Amino acid sequence: MLDSDKKQTLINRLKSIEGHVRGIERMVEEDAYCMDILKQVKAVQQALERVSALTLENHLNTCVTTAIRSEDDVEKTRVVTEIMDVFKATGKL
Amino acid sequence: MLDSDKKQTLINRLKSIEGHVRGIERMVEEDAYCMDILKQVKAVQQALERVSALTLENHLNTCVTTAIRSEDDVEKTRVVTEIMDVFKATGKL
Amino acid sequence: MLDSDKKQTLINRLKSIEGHVRGIERMVEEDAYCMDILKQVKAVQQALERVSALTLENHLNTCVTTAIRSEDDVEKTRVVTEIMDVFKATGKL
Amino acid sequence: MLDSDKKQTLINRLKSIEGHVRGIERMVEEDAYCMDILKQVKAVQQALERVSALTLENHLNTCVTTAIRSEDDVEKTRVVTEIMDVFKATGKL
Repeated sequence: MLDSDKKQTLINRLKSIEGHVRGIERMVEEDAYCMDILKQVKAVQQALERVSALTLENHLNTCVTTAIRSEDDVEKTRVVTEIMDVFKATGKL
Repeated sequence: MLDSDKKQTLINRLKSIEGHVRGIERMVEEDAYCMDILKQVKAVQQALERVSALTLENHLNTCVTTAIRSEDDVEKTRVVTEIMDVFKATGKL
Repeated sequence: MLDSDKKQTLINRLKSIEGHVRGIERMVEEDAYCMDILKQVKAVQQALERVSALTLENHLNTCVTTAIRSEDDVEKTRVVTEIMDVFKATGKL
Repeated sequence: MLDSDKKQTLINRLKSIEGHVRGIERMVEEDAYCMDILKQVKAVQQALERVSALTLENHLNTCVTTAIRSEDDVEKTRVVTEIMDVFKATGKL
Protein backbone atom coordinates (compact mmCIF):
# COMPACT_ATOMS: atom_id res chain seq x y z
CA MET A 1 0.00 0.00 0.00
CA LEU A 2 1.24 3.50 -0.82
CA ASP A 3 1.02 6.26 1.83
CA SER A 4 -0.72 9.46 0.69
CA ASP A 5 2.54 11.32 -0.07
CA LYS A 6 3.86 8.59 -2.35
CA LYS A 7 0.43 8.25 -3.97
CA GLN A 8 0.47 11.95 -4.81
CA THR A 9 4.05 11.76 -6.15
CA LEU A 10 3.14 8.83 -8.41
CA ILE A 11 -0.06 10.46 -9.65
CA ASN A 12 1.81 13.71 -10.43
CA ARG A 13 4.44 11.82 -12.38
CA LEU A 14 1.84 9.83 -14.29
CA LYS A 15 -0.05 13.04 -15.17
CA SER A 16 3.19 14.56 -16.44
CA ILE A 17 3.86 11.40 -18.51
CA GLU A 18 0.33 11.66 -19.94
CA GLY A 19 1.06 15.25 -21.01
CA HIS A 20 4.38 14.17 -22.48
CA VAL A 21 2.66 11.48 -24.58
CA ARG A 22 0.13 14.08 -25.80
CA GLY A 23 3.10 16.25 -26.82
CA ILE A 24 4.48 13.38 -28.90
CA GLU A 25 1.09 13.02 -30.64
CA ARG A 26 1.34 16.70 -31.64
CA MET A 27 4.90 16.15 -32.89
CA VAL A 28 3.67 13.31 -35.12
CA GLU A 29 0.76 15.44 -36.40
CA GLU A 30 3.12 18.31 -37.20
CA ASP A 31 5.61 16.06 -39.08
CA ALA A 32 8.47 16.32 -36.59
CA TYR A 33 11.77 14.66 -37.49
CA CYS A 34 11.63 10.88 -36.69
CA MET A 35 14.72 10.99 -34.49
CA ASP A 36 13.22 13.79 -32.39
CA ILE A 37 10.07 11.70 -31.91
CA LEU A 38 12.27 8.75 -30.91
CA LYS A 39 14.12 10.87 -28.34
CA GLN A 40 10.86 11.98 -26.73
CA VAL A 41 9.59 8.37 -26.60
CA LYS A 42 12.85 7.46 -24.80
CA ALA A 43 12.31 10.33 -22.33
CA VAL A 44 8.84 8.96 -21.52
CA GLN A 45 10.35 5.47 -21.10
CA GLN A 46 12.83 6.86 -18.58
CA ALA A 47 10.07 8.67 -16.68
CA LEU A 48 8.16 5.36 -16.53
CA GLU A 49 11.31 3.64 -15.21
CA ARG A 50 11.26 6.10 -12.31
CA VAL A 51 7.59 5.30 -11.66
CA SER A 52 8.47 1.58 -11.63
CA ALA A 53 11.41 2.22 -9.29
CA LEU A 54 9.24 4.13 -6.79
CA THR A 55 6.57 1.43 -6.94
CA LEU A 56 9.04 -1.43 -6.46
CA GLU A 57 10.85 0.35 -3.63
CA ASN A 58 7.54 0.90 -1.85
CA HIS A 59 6.57 -2.72 -2.46
CA LEU A 60 9.82 -3.99 -0.92
CA ASN A 61 9.38 -1.72 2.10
CA THR A 62 5.76 -2.69 2.74
CA CYS A 63 4.21 -5.88 1.30
CA VAL A 64 7.49 -7.79 0.89
CA THR A 65 8.62 -6.84 4.40
CA THR A 66 5.27 -7.92 5.87
CA ALA A 67 5.27 -11.19 3.92
CA ILE A 68 8.82 -12.06 4.95
CA ARG A 69 8.30 -11.07 8.62
CA SER A 70 5.19 -13.27 8.78
CA GLU A 71 7.63 -16.23 9.00
CA ASP A 72 5.24 -17.97 6.59
CA ASP A 73 7.39 -19.55 3.88
CA VAL A 74 4.49 -19.85 1.46
CA GLU A 75 4.01 -16.08 1.68
CA LYS A 76 7.74 -15.45 1.29
CA THR A 77 7.89 -17.69 -1.78
CA ARG A 78 4.86 -15.89 -3.22
CA VAL A 79 6.40 -12.40 -3.00
CA VAL A 80 9.81 -13.55 -4.27
CA THR A 81 8.22 -15.39 -7.22
CA GLU A 82 6.12 -12.33 -8.00
CA ILE A 83 9.18 -10.06 -8.13
CA MET A 84 11.11 -12.54 -10.29
CA ASP A 85 8.13 -12.94 -12.66
CA VAL A 86 7.93 -9.22 -13.34
CA PHE A 87 11.61 -9.11 -14.26
CA LYS A 88 11.71 -12.31 -16.27
CA ALA A 89 8.56 -11.39 -18.20
CA THR A 90 10.24 -8.32 -19.61
CA GLY A 91 13.72 -9.78 -20.01
CA LYS A 92 15.13 -6.76 -18.22
CA LEU A 93 17.04 -7.35 -15.05
CA MET B 1 8.67 11.93 -42.94
CA LEU B 2 5.75 9.66 -42.13
CA ASP B 3 3.08 9.01 -44.74
CA SER B 4 -0.50 9.68 -43.64
CA ASP B 5 -1.26 6.00 -42.88
CA LYS B 6 1.73 5.59 -40.60
CA LYS B 7 1.01 8.96 -38.98
CA GLN B 8 -2.50 7.77 -38.14
CA THR B 9 -1.21 4.43 -36.80
CA LEU B 10 1.28 6.21 -34.54
CA ILE B 11 -1.28 8.73 -33.30
CA ASN B 12 -3.79 5.95 -32.53
CA ARG B 13 -1.16 4.03 -30.57
CA LEU B 14 -0.09 7.13 -28.66
CA LYS B 15 -3.73 7.92 -27.79
CA SER B 16 -4.16 4.37 -26.52
CA ILE B 17 -0.96 4.73 -24.45
CA GLU B 18 -2.30 8.00 -23.03
CA GLY B 19 -5.49 6.20 -21.94
CA HIS B 20 -3.46 3.37 -20.46
CA VAL B 21 -1.43 5.86 -18.38
CA ARG B 22 -4.68 7.45 -17.16
CA GLY B 23 -5.84 3.96 -16.14
CA ILE B 24 -2.67 3.53 -14.05
CA GLU B 25 -3.39 6.87 -12.33
CA ARG B 26 -6.80 5.50 -11.32
CA MET B 27 -5.19 2.27 -10.06
CA VAL B 28 -2.87 4.33 -7.84
CA GLU B 29 -5.79 6.43 -6.57
CA GLU B 30 -7.80 3.31 -5.76
CA ASP B 31 -4.88 1.65 -3.88
CA ALA B 32 -4.23 -1.16 -6.34
CA TYR B 33 -1.63 -3.77 -5.44
CA CYS B 34 1.91 -2.48 -6.24
CA MET B 35 2.77 -5.45 -8.44
CA ASP B 36 -0.36 -4.90 -10.53
CA ILE B 37 0.65 -1.26 -11.03
CA LEU B 38 4.15 -2.42 -12.02
CA LYS B 39 2.71 -4.86 -14.58
CA GLN B 40 0.64 -2.10 -16.22
CA VAL B 41 3.67 0.22 -16.33
CA LYS B 42 5.56 -2.60 -18.13
CA ALA B 43 2.69 -2.97 -20.61
CA VAL B 44 2.91 0.75 -21.41
CA GLN B 45 6.69 0.42 -21.85
CA GLN B 46 6.13 -2.38 -24.35
CA ALA B 47 3.57 -0.33 -26.26
CA LEU B 48 6.11 2.52 -26.40
CA GLU B 49 8.74 0.08 -27.73
CA ARG B 50 6.39 -0.66 -30.62
CA VAL B 51 5.99 3.07 -31.28
CA SER B 52 9.80 3.40 -31.30
CA ALA B 53 10.11 0.40 -33.63
CA LEU B 54 7.63 1.87 -36.13
CA THR B 55 9.37 5.24 -35.98
CA LEU B 56 12.85 3.77 -36.43
CA GLU B 57 11.72 1.52 -39.28
CA ASN B 58 10.18 4.48 -41.07
CA HIS B 59 13.32 6.53 -40.45
CA LEU B 60 15.53 3.83 -41.99
CA ASN B 61 13.25 3.55 -45.01
CA THR B 62 13.02 7.29 -45.66
CA CYS B 63 15.58 9.75 -44.21
CA VAL B 64 18.41 7.23 -43.80
CA THR B 65 17.87 5.89 -47.32
CA THR B 66 17.86 9.41 -48.80
CA ALA B 67 20.96 10.42 -46.83
CA ILE B 68 22.89 7.32 -47.87
CA ARG B 69 21.78 7.50 -51.52
CA SER B 70 22.91 11.16 -51.70
CA GLU B 71 26.48 9.75 -51.92
CA ASP B 72 27.40 12.58 -49.50
CA ASP B 73 29.55 11.01 -46.80
CA VAL B 74 28.94 13.86 -44.35
CA GLU B 75 25.21 13.13 -44.58
CA LYS B 76 25.77 9.39 -44.19
CA THR B 77 27.94 9.94 -41.12
CA ARG B 78 25.29 12.27 -39.67
CA VAL B 79 22.45 9.72 -39.92
CA VAL B 80 24.59 6.83 -38.64
CA THR B 81 25.86 8.91 -35.69
CA GLU B 82 22.30 9.96 -34.90
CA ILE B 83 21.08 6.35 -34.79
CA MET B 84 24.03 5.28 -32.63
CA ASP B 85 23.49 8.24 -30.24
CA VAL B 86 19.88 7.28 -29.58
CA PHE B 87 20.90 3.72 -28.67
CA LYS B 88 23.98 4.62 -26.65
CA ALA B 89 22.13 7.33 -24.69
CA THR B 90 19.78 4.74 -23.28
CA GLY B 91 22.26 1.93 -22.90
CA LYS B 92 19.89 -0.35 -24.74
CA LEU B 93 21.08 -1.93 -27.89
CA MET C 1 25.21 -17.18 0.29
CA LEU C 2 24.62 -19.76 -2.42
CA ASP C 3 24.17 -23.42 -1.51
CA SER C 4 26.47 -25.86 -3.34
CA ASP C 5 23.84 -26.85 -5.94
CA LYS C 6 23.14 -23.27 -6.97
CA LYS C 7 26.87 -22.50 -6.95
CA GLN C 8 27.45 -25.35 -9.40
CA THR C 9 24.54 -24.23 -11.61
CA LEU C 10 25.91 -20.68 -11.77
CA ILE C 11 29.47 -21.84 -12.45
CA ASN C 12 28.27 -24.15 -15.25
CA ARG C 13 26.30 -21.34 -16.84
CA LEU C 14 29.22 -18.92 -16.58
CA LYS C 15 31.58 -21.49 -18.15
CA SER C 16 29.12 -21.93 -21.01
CA ILE C 17 28.92 -18.13 -21.43
CA GLU C 18 32.73 -17.99 -21.51
CA GLY C 19 32.75 -20.58 -24.33
CA HIS C 20 30.05 -18.65 -26.16
CA VAL C 21 32.15 -15.45 -26.00
CA ARG C 22 35.15 -17.37 -27.35
CA GLY C 23 32.93 -18.55 -30.21
CA ILE C 24 32.09 -14.92 -31.04
CA GLU C 25 35.83 -14.09 -31.12
CA ARG C 26 36.27 -16.81 -33.74
CA MET C 27 33.30 -15.44 -35.73
CA VAL C 28 34.97 -12.00 -35.78
CA GLU C 29 38.31 -13.51 -36.83
CA GLU C 30 36.64 -15.46 -39.64
CA ASP C 31 34.77 -12.36 -40.96
CA ALA C 32 31.27 -13.52 -40.05
CA TYR C 33 28.35 -11.33 -41.13
CA CYS C 34 27.87 -8.42 -38.64
CA MET C 35 24.22 -9.27 -37.96
CA ASP C 36 25.16 -12.86 -37.08
CA ILE C 37 27.74 -11.53 -34.61
CA LEU C 38 25.10 -9.21 -33.16
CA LYS C 39 22.66 -12.12 -32.71
CA GLN C 40 25.25 -14.14 -30.81
CA VAL C 41 26.06 -11.16 -28.57
CA LYS C 42 22.33 -10.91 -27.80
CA ALA C 43 22.23 -14.62 -26.93
CA VAL C 44 25.09 -14.11 -24.45
CA GLN C 45 23.23 -11.12 -22.97
CA GLN C 46 20.16 -13.30 -22.45
CA ALA C 47 22.26 -16.03 -20.80
CA LEU C 48 23.69 -13.37 -18.47
CA GLU C 49 20.15 -12.20 -17.65
CA ARG C 50 19.41 -15.72 -16.45
CA VAL C 51 22.55 -15.67 -14.28
CA SER C 52 21.39 -12.34 -12.81
CA ALA C 53 17.90 -13.72 -12.22
CA LEU C 54 19.24 -16.78 -10.34
CA THR C 55 21.54 -14.58 -8.28
CA LEU C 56 18.82 -12.08 -7.40
CA GLU C 57 16.32 -14.80 -6.55
CA ASN C 58 18.85 -16.42 -4.22
CA HIS C 59 19.65 -13.03 -2.68
CA LEU C 60 15.95 -12.37 -1.94
CA ASN C 61 15.54 -15.83 -0.39
CA THR C 62 18.63 -15.60 1.82
CA CYS C 63 20.28 -12.24 2.67
CA VAL C 64 17.18 -10.10 2.11
CA THR C 65 15.03 -12.48 4.15
CA THR C 66 17.55 -12.53 7.00
CA ALA C 67 17.94 -8.73 6.95
CA ILE C 68 14.19 -8.15 7.00
CA ARG C 69 13.52 -10.79 9.66
CA SER C 70 16.18 -9.20 11.91
CA GLU C 71 13.56 -6.51 12.63
CA ASP C 72 16.46 -4.04 12.32
CA ASP C 73 15.21 -1.18 10.12
CA VAL C 74 18.74 -0.04 9.27
CA GLU C 75 19.44 -3.49 7.84
CA LYS C 76 16.14 -3.54 5.96
CA THR C 77 16.85 -0.12 4.45
CA ARG C 78 20.33 -1.28 3.48
CA VAL C 79 19.13 -4.31 1.51
CA VAL C 80 16.28 -2.41 -0.16
CA THR C 81 18.60 0.46 -1.15
CA GLU C 82 21.11 -2.04 -2.52
CA ILE C 83 18.50 -3.72 -4.72
CA MET C 84 17.22 -0.36 -5.96
CA ASP C 85 20.78 0.85 -6.70
CA VAL C 86 21.54 -2.12 -8.92
CA PHE C 87 18.44 -1.51 -10.99
CA LYS C 88 18.73 2.28 -11.17
CA ALA C 89 22.42 2.10 -12.11
CA THR C 90 21.56 0.26 -15.28
CA GLY C 91 18.32 2.07 -16.04
CA LYS C 92 16.61 -1.27 -16.49
CA LEU C 93 13.71 -2.05 -14.27
CA MET D 1 32.85 -6.68 -43.19
CA LEU D 2 35.12 -5.31 -40.47
CA ASP D 3 38.47 -3.73 -41.39
CA SER D 4 41.50 -5.16 -39.55
CA ASP D 5 41.62 -2.36 -36.94
CA LYS D 6 38.00 -2.82 -35.93
CA LYS D 7 38.42 -6.59 -35.94
CA GLN D 8 41.32 -6.27 -33.50
CA THR D 9 39.34 -3.85 -31.28
CA LEU D 10 36.40 -6.25 -31.14
CA ILE D 11 38.59 -9.29 -30.45
CA ASN D 12 40.41 -7.43 -27.65
CA ARG D 13 37.13 -6.43 -26.06
CA LEU D 14 35.74 -9.95 -26.34
CA LYS D 15 38.91 -11.39 -24.75
CA SER D 16 38.57 -8.91 -21.90
CA ILE D 17 34.89 -9.91 -21.47
CA GLU D 18 35.95 -13.58 -21.39
CA GLY D 19 38.41 -12.78 -18.57
CA HIS D 20 35.74 -10.83 -16.74
CA VAL D 21 33.34 -13.80 -16.91
CA ARG D 22 36.11 -16.07 -15.55
CA GLY D 23 36.54 -13.59 -12.68
CA ILE D 24 32.82 -13.92 -11.86
CA GLU D 25 33.19 -17.73 -11.79
CA ARG D 26 35.92 -17.29 -9.15
CA MET D 27 33.69 -14.91 -7.18
CA VAL D 28 30.94 -17.55 -7.12
CA GLU D 29 33.42 -20.26 -6.07
CA GLU D 30 34.74 -18.07 -3.26
CA ASP D 31 31.24 -17.24 -1.95
CA ALA D 32 31.23 -13.55 -2.88
CA TYR D 33 28.24 -11.46 -1.80
CA CYS D 34 25.32 -11.91 -4.27
CA MET D 35 24.99 -8.20 -4.94
CA ASP D 36 28.69 -7.96 -5.85
CA ILE D 37 28.24 -10.84 -8.30
CA LEU D 38 25.21 -9.05 -9.76
CA LYS D 39 27.23 -5.81 -10.21
CA GLN D 40 29.96 -7.65 -12.12
CA VAL D 41 27.37 -9.35 -14.35
CA LYS D 42 25.97 -5.88 -15.14
CA ALA D 43 29.49 -4.65 -15.98
CA VAL D 44 29.89 -7.51 -18.47
CA GLN D 45 26.47 -6.66 -19.95
CA GLN D 46 27.59 -3.08 -20.48
CA ALA D 47 30.84 -4.22 -22.13
CA LEU D 48 28.75 -6.42 -24.45
CA GLU D 49 26.54 -3.40 -25.27
CA ARG D 50 29.66 -1.62 -26.48
CA VAL D 51 30.58 -4.62 -28.64
CA SER D 52 27.05 -4.54 -30.11
CA ALA D 53 27.30 -0.79 -30.70
CA LEU D 54 30.61 -1.14 -32.58
CA THR D 55 29.22 -4.00 -34.64
CA LEU D 56 26.00 -2.19 -35.52
CA GLU D 57 27.82 1.04 -36.38
CA ASN D 58 30.14 -0.87 -38.69
CA HIS D 59 27.17 -2.68 -40.23
CA LEU D 60 25.38 0.62 -40.97
CA ASN D 61 28.54 2.09 -42.51
CA THR D 62 29.29 -0.91 -44.72
CA CYS D 63 26.64 -3.53 -45.58
CA VAL D 64 23.62 -1.25 -45.03
CA THR D 65 25.21 1.53 -47.05
CA THR D 66 26.04 -0.86 -49.90
CA ALA D 67 22.57 -2.40 -49.86
CA ILE D 68 20.84 0.98 -49.89
CA ARG D 69 23.14 2.45 -52.58
CA SER D 70 22.48 -0.57 -54.82
CA GLU D 71 19.07 1.08 -55.56
CA ASP D 72 17.66 -2.43 -55.23
CA ASP D 73 14.57 -2.12 -53.05
CA VAL D 74 14.56 -5.83 -52.19
CA GLU D 75 18.06 -5.43 -50.78
CA LYS D 76 17.09 -2.28 -48.87
CA THR D 77 14.05 -4.02 -47.38
CA ARG D 78 16.23 -6.97 -46.40
CA VAL D 79 18.74 -4.89 -44.41
CA VAL D 80 16.05 -2.78 -42.75
CA THR D 81 14.04 -5.87 -41.77
CA GLU D 82 17.20 -7.48 -40.40
CA ILE D 83 17.97 -4.48 -38.18
CA MET D 84 14.36 -4.32 -36.94
CA ASP D 85 14.33 -8.08 -36.23
CA VAL D 86 17.38 -7.86 -33.99
CA PHE D 87 15.78 -5.11 -31.93
CA LYS D 88 12.30 -6.58 -31.77
CA ALA D 89 13.63 -10.03 -30.84
CA THR D 90 15.16 -8.70 -27.67
CA GLY D 91 12.46 -6.19 -26.85
CA LYS D 92 15.13 -3.53 -26.43
CA LEU D 93 14.97 -0.53 -28.66
